[in-house]
Order: sequence, then structure tokens, then C-alpha cells
Amino acid sequence: MEDEVRKLHEEHTGVLSTKALLEVRNKEELGMAYTPGVAELSKLIHKNVSDAKKYTMSGKLVAVITDGSAVLGLGNIGPEAGLPIVEGKALLYKTFADVDAIPLAVNQGSADDIVRSIEGVSRSFAGIHLEDIAAPKCFEIEEELQKRLNIPVYHDDQEGTAMAVLAGLINASHLVQKDLATMKIVLVGIGASGVATAKLLLAYGAKNLVLVDQQGILKKDDETLNRYQKELLQESQAKVTGTTLADAMVGADVVIGLSAGHIVTKEMVETMADQPIVFALANPVPEIEPEEAGDGGAVLVATGSSKHPNQINNVLVFPGLYRGLIQSGLTQVSLPLQINVSEALAKMIQPTVEAFIPNVFDEGVADVVTEAVVNFRG
Amino acid sequence: MEDEVRKLHEEHTGVLSTKALLEVRNKEELGMAYTPGVAELSKLIHKNVSDAKKYTMSGKLVAVITDGSAVLGLGNIGPEAGLPIVEGKALLYKTFADVDAIPLAVNQGSADDIVRSIEGVSRSFAGIHLEDIAAPKCFEIEEELQKRLNIPVYHDDQEGTAMAVLAGLINASHLVQKDLATMKIVLVGIGASGVATAKLLLAYGAKNLVLVDQQGILKKDDETLNRYQKELLQESQAKVTGTTLADAMVGADVVIGLSAGHIVTKEMVETMADQPIVFALANPVPEIEPEEAGDGGAVLVATGSSKHPNQINNVLVFPGLYRGLIQSGLTQVSLPLQINVSEALAKMIQPTVEAFIPNVFDEGVADVVTEAVVNFRG
Repeated sequence: MEDEVRKLHEEHTGVLSTKALLEVRNKEELGMAYTPGVAELSKLIHKNVSDAKKYTMSGKLVAVITDGSAVLGLGNIGPEAGLPIVEGKALLYKTFADVDAIPLAVNQGSADDIVRSIEGVSRSFAGIHLEDIAAPKCFEIEEELQKRLNIPVYHDDQEGTAMAVLAGLINASHLVQKDLATMKIVLVGIGASGVATAKLLLAYGAKNLVLVDQQGILKKDDETLNRYQKELLQESQAKVTGTTLADAMVGADVVIGLSAGHIVTKEMVETMADQPIVFALANPVPEIEPEEAGDGGAVLVATGSSKHPNQINNVLVFPGLYRGLIQSGLTQVSLPLQINVSEALAKMIQPTVEAFIPNVFDEGVADVVTEAVVNFRG
Repeated sequence: MEDEVRKLHEEHTGVLSTKALLEVRNKEELGMAYTPGVAELSKLIHKNVSDAKKYTMSGKLVAVITDGSAVLGLGNIGPEAGLPIVEGKALLYKTFADVDAIPLAVNQGSADDIVRSIEGVSRSFAGIHLEDIAAPKCFEIEEELQKRLNIPVYHDDQEGTAMAVLAGLINASHLVQKDLATMKIVLVGIGASGVATAKLLLAYGAKNLVLVDQQGILKKDDETLNRYQKELLQESQAKVTGTTLADAMVGADVVIGLSAGHIVTKEMVETMADQPIVFALANPVPEIEPEEAGDGGAVLVATGSSKHPNQINNVLVFPGLYRGLIQSGLTQVSLPLQINVSEALAKMIQPTVEAFIPNVFDEGVADVVTEAVVNFRG
């Protein structure tokens, strides 16, 4: 398969091209598509800058941007090596929602450097999709860009993952007939996606949220925590006993892994509350293999891989999301909007043990998400 | 026509879209186009950064970038208002040479700010096409980007115009049977295109070159000149008498206007040498109307407009040029390469008074330019 992947991506130098939407076959058509015709548009936009979104690609083009600092399971491999990922996402935008997106690699540097590089070309775009940027830098970058730009700025590893996880968890909680507000939820891996998922779960009403990272259970007095982790601990009302992941999992209703392969054991699952729910989302190796989780008593299992049932995949979210943002003119992917999207995704299927989250190839997924955005009244 | 232009550009929000080159209809295809397949490519590129040009759009995508500081005849109208122009050029890249190009608006700022913004995202591209950036900032920006990046950096208003002008002038000089090396050439307007055209003419062997700008004939002791203008005066061997444009034109074989509308008079043309050649390239209003130039005795006239015969249009150059740069891997649009392109364009037609420069819709224009680049041995 590796050879075939190389061949496929080499054949056309990437997986996307541009496409002309106007024909230019003669002087007259040239004059309409380019000068002197476009001088008219330039004048209109000069008078009213927002008209650029009406007459140019900047009204529809999404930039999918990475610095390659936190790519898949590969870590910090640099901007160029991040390009296949962002280009793949740009392709999925087109495929699933007919959204025009282009891949950009941004040079690594301080959060400020990256913000300035992106801001420098931001007038070209209808939205910014950040991808595979390491935490905690990604939080600062997103926050600062959201402040400075008047277009949506979205980090797929954060909000995208959070929305997909919440969608799955809403249906999973229905299946076990428990209330998300009171369930004990252990979240493992408090990086980009962990922070955003915790934030969304808290906004949705989850109160009993235990956060676990490499140092064990996060505690308010831990000086090594970043500002974003500390804010989460202020909000969670979980009563924590012990210090380790194993301690955290005792009596838990749900464990959500957004961390690393094979760090959850069957024995840990055995200590969970009745009807354990296990989301082992690390990729390509999950926190615990689904079979092992089942052996430990888990009744509902999701992973990040298409090899198993119930794949929690951001492709469920981002294509329809950005189509909705562009159609509606919304500039913030706020927490209430995220909840709207998750609920819409959850609602679109009759959940079962084998399928409590829609499949990316289910008909209408992107439409449901787009509608949730367009109909959102925040 | 203005309404129709607006409608055309509004219908699809701009004149270009992206196009998927791979189908993603099922889990297997998703795995090839995106994860887990692309992880393989990321690893290859991490090992060998130049492989990004092989497997991703960064090996073929040209960024057409403006800050909107010197747009057409409109002046400094801002980055957004420059977008219709760069988007139009991106469309022409696709139409005339099947080159994938995207329009970018970069925020205005110091030359250094603009260099940093462009450098920040440059790993995404196979080449940089600068457009409508005011002189003298554009010289610094281009020079600095050429130093820092290992992809071609080209300013269409400079090198593009220069190549198209030289192509026309080669054929014009043949028609009047004069030698470019000794002809007295008056160049009016020593901004971006004027500087680049002077540089190319000098490199081609023109020696008797008189430079005229708003202050009149440029003189070596003029403290207001920028570094680029001064360098040109060091090279030209013209013996200058007088101070005004009218003075400069006395006895001139050629006048090339890259300046402003209606600044050359019939009377000035009457003072030129026998068989005067007039390139009145200001747009939309030429330095002198072709009819008036003819009344003054001009035997060969070119303009920047498609309304008259002999349009000197950069579209003759840039689509084929960049296709050639991408195919050949050349990273510099050097003066010898520019000469190669101009000579190839000149040679492709049998010049006549009515057509001594190819028309942009002549079959094979882009192919001729591409070949001139690909076969160049510099």
C-alpha cells in the first residue's frame, strides 16, 4: 500500500489542483475575467472592503495551516512534512462539502511569529483551519488570531475533536441510560484535543471530570500546568482521590483517551463503574485495544481508527462546519455552536452498540453539520 | 459591461475553485488520500524535505501575491482591492498553461514585514509571483525573498513587463533595420517596470538609454534617486543633453512609456530620429494615443491595451514562464533567462507593422515561452 500511496500523490504532484470557473477564449472574455474588467471590482472593494468576500475567492477559500509541530503520531516533523496532512484535509473539504480549501505550511517559531505569518496573508481567506500545531502554543495562536481576524479561526485538533467526541458521548450516555451531567468522566491526555474536549464537556454540563496527563491526575497546585489546564480545573467539580491514571479510573463511567498507545489496561477497565464506556482515540495505536477493553467489561467502545466500529473522526465535523460558517457568515466557533453541531450529529442516527456515532460515509453527515451551523442562534 | 463583470465574479465567489484529483468514496480510498496513508509521505518528507515538492501541491502551486499598493492605474488601494487582479492572474495561469496558482493578499507594511509574511508561508509553494507592489519597496522585497527562498521569486510588473517589451523591441528594431545596441532609447517612468526594463535592455546590449521620470531626465547627481535607479545610470552610456522629456526625445529612435497617460505629444514624436518607434504602455490611458503618434511620424506603435494592435501584455510571458520554471526546477529568473524568453517570443512570428508582437491568443505562445525556459542553459 505504501508504494500505491506514493504513486497516487506523486502522479499529479499532490491531490488537488485549481479549476477555472470562467472561460477566457478571446479578448472580450479576457476583459471580463481580468483587466480592464476587474478594475471595476477593485474600485468597489476599495470603497467597501467587505465586498472582497463577494467578488473574490477570499469569500470562500479556507486555509488549512500547519507548522508540522504535532503531526499524527509522528510529533514535530516540520512544516513540509505536515503538508500531506493539510493537503489531505483540503481534499476532504472538497469531497465532503464542496468547500474550497488550500494547504499551507507555516514556518515554525514563537506563537507570535506564527500569528504574524498567518495574519499577514489572512485577507485572502474566508476562514482559518489550524492543524497539528503543538500545545500549548496552539492555544495562544488560536486565541490571538481569533482576536485579530474577523473570519473564523478553528483548530481541528481542538474543536473538531471535541465536537466529534461529544457527539459520540451523547449517544453513548443514552445507550447506558446515564446522565452526562453526573457521570464520572476521566479524560487522559490534556494537550490540544484534551483541553478543547474538556472545555466542551464542561460547557455541555458535565461536572465530574477528572483530567489525567503524563504526570498523573492534574491537581490545582501543580506549577507545571499551563493556563488552559488550570482554567479547566477551576471548572470541574470532580472529587479526586489518588494520583495515577489507575486511581482516576476507579468508579469512572467513561474514559476518554486522547493521549498515547496502550496506556490503559484491562485491569483498569475492570475497576470502572457498571457499563463502562471506553473512547480509546489515540492514533494509530489506541490507549487500549477494543477487544481488551471488552474483556475488561467495557460495553461501548470507540477508537480513532476506521479498522474498528465507532470511529471518532474529525471528518465528521470540519467539512460541513466550514460550509456552514461560510454560508452563515458566523465568525466564531463558539461553545454553544459546537454543542449544536455535536447534538445534530448524535441525533442523525439511531444509536446502537456497534454504531453510536455516524460513519463518515453515511449520507448527509456534512449536510446535518452545515444545517446545525446555519440554523444556530447563539 | 460593469454589471456583467460583477455578476460573473459574484456567481461563484471568484473565478477559481479547487478540484479534487483523487476520489474518496470509501474507507480504503480515504486511507490512501488521507490518514493513515499520508503518514508514510510525512515520514519520507521528514527524512528528505525536498520530497515535499514531489508528493504535495507545494511542487506545483504558484502564489500570486499583492499588497495592493500599486494596482493598475488605481494606485494604493489596499490588499483586498488587489485581490481581483491576482485572482485574475491565477485564472490566466490555469487557462494559458495549466499552472495551479492561488491569489494571496498580503498586509501592507515595511518591506521587511512583507518579506516575513511571505517567507512565513513560502514552503507551501513552488514559486512566488509578486504583483502590483509599489516601487521602490518592490525591489527590496523581491531581492530579499530571492536571497532567502530556494524557489523562483518573480515580480510580474518588473521582469514580466521587461520581457514583453524586449520581445516587441527586438522585432520592431528588425522592421526598421536598426541595431538595438546603438539605438537611442528613451524610457519614461522609472518605477518597477521601468527599472526592470532598463536592466534587461542594458543586459541585452542596449547602450544608449536615457531614463526619464517625473523630475525629468535622471542624472547621476540627483540625490532623490533610489539605489536601483542609480545603478542603471552607471551602466548606460547615453550622452544626455537637456533636462526634460521633450529634450530627451530629440533624435531618439525609440520611446518606451511605462508612466502615465498623455504625457507624450505629437510634437515630441516629430523631433525623434527617422522611423520612430513608440511604445506607449501606460494603462488604461497610453502616454500618447496611437493615432496621434502616427500623426507625429511614428512608424511602429505598441500599447498596453487590447483595443489597439501590438499589445505588450504580460500574459504573453508569465503562464509559460512558470510552467517552465516548475518543469525545469530553475529557481532564478535571471537576465539571460529573460533574454531567452524575449527572443523566443520575438522569433515566433514574422513581424509586420500591424503585428510585431504575438497576440496572447496566438496558438503556442505559452509553449514557446515554456520551451525557452526548459531549454535555457544559463
